[in-house]
Amino acid sequence: MPETCRIIALGGLGEVGKNMTVYECRGRLLVVDTGLAFPRDEHLGVDLLLPDFGYLTERREAVRAIVLTHGHEDHVGALPYVLRELGPVPVYGTRLTIGLVKSKLDEHGLLRTAELEEVDPERSPVDLDPFRIELVRVAHSIPDAVALVIETPAGRIVHTGDYKFDHTPVDGIKTDVGRLAEIGSLGVDLLLGDSTNAERPGVTQSERVVGEAFRQIVPQRRGRVLVSSFASNVHRMQQAIDVAVLCGRKVCVVGRSMRKNINIARTLGYASAPDDTLIKPAELDDYRPEEVLILCTGSQGEPLSALTRIAYGDHPAVSVERGDTVIISAKPIPGNELRVHDAINGLARLGAEVLHEENALVHVSGHGMAEELRTMLSLLRPRAVMPVHGEFRMLAAHAQLAREAGVPADAIVLAENGSVVEVGPGAPPRIVDHVEAGITFVDGLGVGDVEDVALRDRRRLSEDGILIIVATLAGSNGRPTAEPEVISRGFGESAGPLLEEARDEAGRILRELLDGDVSEIKLLQEHLHDGVGQLIYDRTGRRPMILPVVIEI
Amino acid sequence: MPETCRIIALGGLGEVGKNMTVYECRGRLLVVDTGLAFPRDEHLGVDLLLPDFGYLTERREAVRAIVLTHGHEDHVGALPYVLRELGPVPVYGTRLTIGLVKSKLDEHGLLRTAELEEVDPERSPVDLDPFRIELVRVAHSIPDAVALVIETPAGRIVHTGDYKFDHTPVDGIKTDVGRLAEIGSLGVDLLLGDSTNAERPGVTQSERVVGEAFRQIVPQRRGRVLVSSFASNVHRMQQAIDVAVLCGRKVCVVGRSMRKNINIARTLGYASAPDDTLIKPAELDDYRPEEVLILCTGSQGEPLSALTRIAYGDHPAVSVERGDTVIISAKPIPGNELRVHDAINGLARLGAEVLHEENALVHVSGHGMAEELRTMLSLLRPRAVMPVHGEFRMLAAHAQLAREAGVPADAIVLAENGSVVEVGPGAPPRIVDHVEAGITFVDGLGVGDVEDVALRDRRRLSEDGILIIVATLAGSNGRPTAEPEVISRGFGESAGPLLEEARDEAGRILRELLDGDVSEIKLLQEHLHDGVGQLIYDRTGRRPMILPVVIEI
Repeated sequence: MPETCRIIALGGLGEVGKNMTVYECRGRLLVVDTGLAFPRDEHLGVDLLLPDFGYLTERREAVRAIVLTHGHEDHVGALPYVLRELGPVPVYGTRLTIGLVKSKLDEHGLLRTAELEEVDPERSPVDLDPFRIELVRVAHSIPDAVALVIETPAGRIVHTGDYKFDHTPVDGIKTDVGRLAEIGSLGVDLLLGDSTNAERPGVTQSERVVGEAFRQIVPQRRGRVLVSSFASNVHRMQQAIDVAVLCGRKVCVVGRSMRKNINIARTLGYASAPDDTLIKPAELDDYRPEEVLILCTGSQGEPLSALTRIAYGDHPAVSVERGDTVIISAKPIPGNELRVHDAINGLARLGAEVLHEENALVHVSGHGMAEELRTMLSLLRPRAVMPVHGEFRMLAAHAQLAREAGVPADAIVLAENGSVVEVGPGAPPRIVDHVEAGITFVDGLGVGDVEDVALRDRRRLSEDGILIIVATLAGSNGRPTAEPEVISRGFGESAGPLLEEARDEAGRILRELLDGDVSEIKLLQEHLHDGVGQLIYDRTGRRPMILPVVIEI
Repeated sequence: MPETCRIIALGGLGEVGKNMTVYECRGRLLVVDTGLAFPRDEHLGVDLLLPDFGYLTERREAVRAIVLTHGHEDHVGALPYVLRELGPVPVYGTRLTIGLVKSKLDEHGLLRTAELEEVDPERSPVDLDPFRIELVRVAHSIPDAVALVIETPAGRIVHTGDYKFDHTPVDGIKTDVGRLAEIGSLGVDLLLGDSTNAERPGVTQSERVVGEAFRQIVPQRRGRVLVSSFASNVHRMQQAIDVAVLCGRKVCVVGRSMRKNINIARTLGYASAPDDTLIKPAELDDYRPEEVLILCTGSQGEPLSALTRIAYGDHPAVSVERGDTVIISAKPIPGNELRVHDAINGLARLGAEVLHEENALVHVSGHGMAEELRTMLSLLRPRAVMPVHGEFRMLAAHAQLAREAGVPADAIVLAENGSVVEVGPGAPPRIVDHVEAGITFVDGLGVGDVEDVALRDRRRLSEDGILIIVATLAGSNGRPTAEPEVISRGFGESAGPLLEEARDEAGRILRELLDGDVSEIKLLQEHLHDGVGQLIYDRTGRRPMILPVVIEI
């Protein structure tokens, strides 16, 4: 019987296989990426979203290795949580990726036990029996990103990770189209390709154009210049530093994650800045506004980030005034638009001119658009395609591109997270099973203890608040010891007289039931819940959570 | 002493003067627009946002009239609430605006007492002593929109309302540039101009291009075609109906507000459709998919709207399958992006091709862009400008356009909601005062009874849930009658042992205090709150609301 390989996409908050993909063959598991997602507004109070990797913990002994495609949070952020559960599994990645991961594991106290393996793409493949992994350089919005060529007993699979075809990347390291074409000639049985920008026609512009925009904007400015971007976008920061050096401005890096990443990138040789260019936030007061360029976090309007605090005039070291320029060198992730708009309004109110992706060419995507996806399909000429890394509509658009490139419709797999896709010789890949593949919530110190029921309650509480009815019954005779108490939170302030009425109603319900010899506490609570709930709804049109507490004493 | 006029912008959720503007002169008040805003995610559980029009209710007798610029919800939606508070104030507007408002007032049971005055712009001005109001036709994304020329004893003010310069509007009724130029020649003392698209360079495309897109898309489709847009966008719907007639498709209108608006527009002659073209949702089953075009609400991904229910396979009359086409003919209002994306993903999953503003020219804005704002400034040549209708950053961009048009910097007023701007001869307008101008929440049946405290509580509840501690003390000896009870909601499911611990801690705190002769209930509650809260935080890193209830019996 011919051998097969199974592919399982996990995590990703609707983006299939974005955070984690598992390859399973001969009973061994290879994990590609261990990322996390950031909560949407609907994930009330939750701090982080991890892929549910129960599939791995149940097969702990079988996990052969973890391979990371690049150092973005949505590809590496869950690693501490995964390693804590799985124990020491070897982790492979390029130099910068491993450097960033080291610092992360250190913060979680896991560095000592971790097995981190730095791989030079030029010296791959890595033998991870029964898999053999070749790393192929790709351009992305972080240096040292790679696609993976995964040789399995069931065929050759290419896993692109996030990529674009940037022909003029800042570090000169382009997507290795030569090697991709060679691999295409060797024959690709299945392509798992990034679909993020599949719906967008054309080609993503080169990262270099952002540097050109910086060079046009910054030299003519007379006030402070602030540049905000993702803390991991090393080339973006490098380009800002370069233009600062060009204009004789000092560079001040504000925001913990950005300082950390710049330090790692400089140490490992991925970024450079003359020592006398960098100044500390505390030194900003020693310079005139036109002598500094401030690099800061907060390009997504995150509530506690540097830029947000600056926009609200609430940052200890940095302020903004008329004549200053703020460049938001990022695009809001869907769901963050209002927060980013609020920050822009705050900065405009302080008098700053704000340049952002809607009014200046200060951002380009890290993901290739439709024409680049077509190029990838042409280079690799895969026998089958499984679009990944995207919402369903993007996968559908990628599938359309694959069909147009000549891939037979029955060799295109539109999987969901949790789909188990089987690949084997002779037949197109197909979905053969589904495994549990939800999201694990991280809330405070707890991982996975807040589940959907708690979120449903939080949502309910957030909509109309809560009304608590406390009634005490004397154990001796089962009669109420006093009128019930009614307490509300988040319901409405002028609710005083209504609460009185609710209290009376609760007393009436209770007496009626007890008179009718109903005394089971569960039943009493049910009647209080329904009766008072109805009264409140009739009076206000609202449905707060009603929580009756009946205590027998 | 020369006479002055005061202008007060109210409401608008950060968009200055969007929902309501008050002109005050010789002790009389003229109200322009009475709109509402839709809540953002942060307004937990709130249904609608009204401008706080306390300024009007305090001066009820002085309110001369309400003039409406057009029939959009953010300009007329608060009218029932305003009239209920102010009593019968005459309301002026164009034919369609009054038609839409009539139906709204009828739903609120206010139609009988309302004084509605239909104004034909060609027959204005209307004398509303001490004001005289001329209505000037403008193009917008609803028919029958007007700008206002307000003659006051302190000078001539132009209030543009929402507008664009559409030279090929669907109904042929263009923005009346001739009249605007004449008014410019008469002399404009102050311009209050729409700033929505001030940041966007160029010119907004004509509404007609959307019709052209429909004509390219619909005839070649073989399945159902759904078109979703704002229920008030009569021309958009007309263009969809026209293309349906062209292709011999029946038109089915789905969604209450859209059915209502189409009926009003047809009755008043603003829309037309052959009677045999329109079919009822119940009749859809009698036709093959390629024989129908469905017009539906839900272009903003609203949870209970037709399109959302269709996307989730949950609509009683309409379903979507492979081969169908859905045109979302709108742009997500900031904050609605994720909901719209979710709807698109749902529709794509059902097999539909989804065309939306990101991948097809199926929407144009109703607001003019920067070049159109420049045109308005050139036509009117105002002595002073007060940018309105926009977030601060848009107002700032509009101010920049005004400066570039030659308006002196000190004659440009950047006001906030609640600013009182004084206009008089001889001096540029300036902010002289501030009045209360917040937002009034409508939640269920309640108007204004949910305030910030309740929202703060809802937010707190939504983040980490609630923990309720119920303790009973015997009134006879002040001792606890039993161990306290601890109940949680929205906190975390595996919280069982922790709740035990919290219960023990609450018992310990209580005994310790009572042993120390502390028996004041307020103090006991405070200690329970702090002690249990700290325990929970230490164990989980979370801060649920802690609600101690101590009952003396």
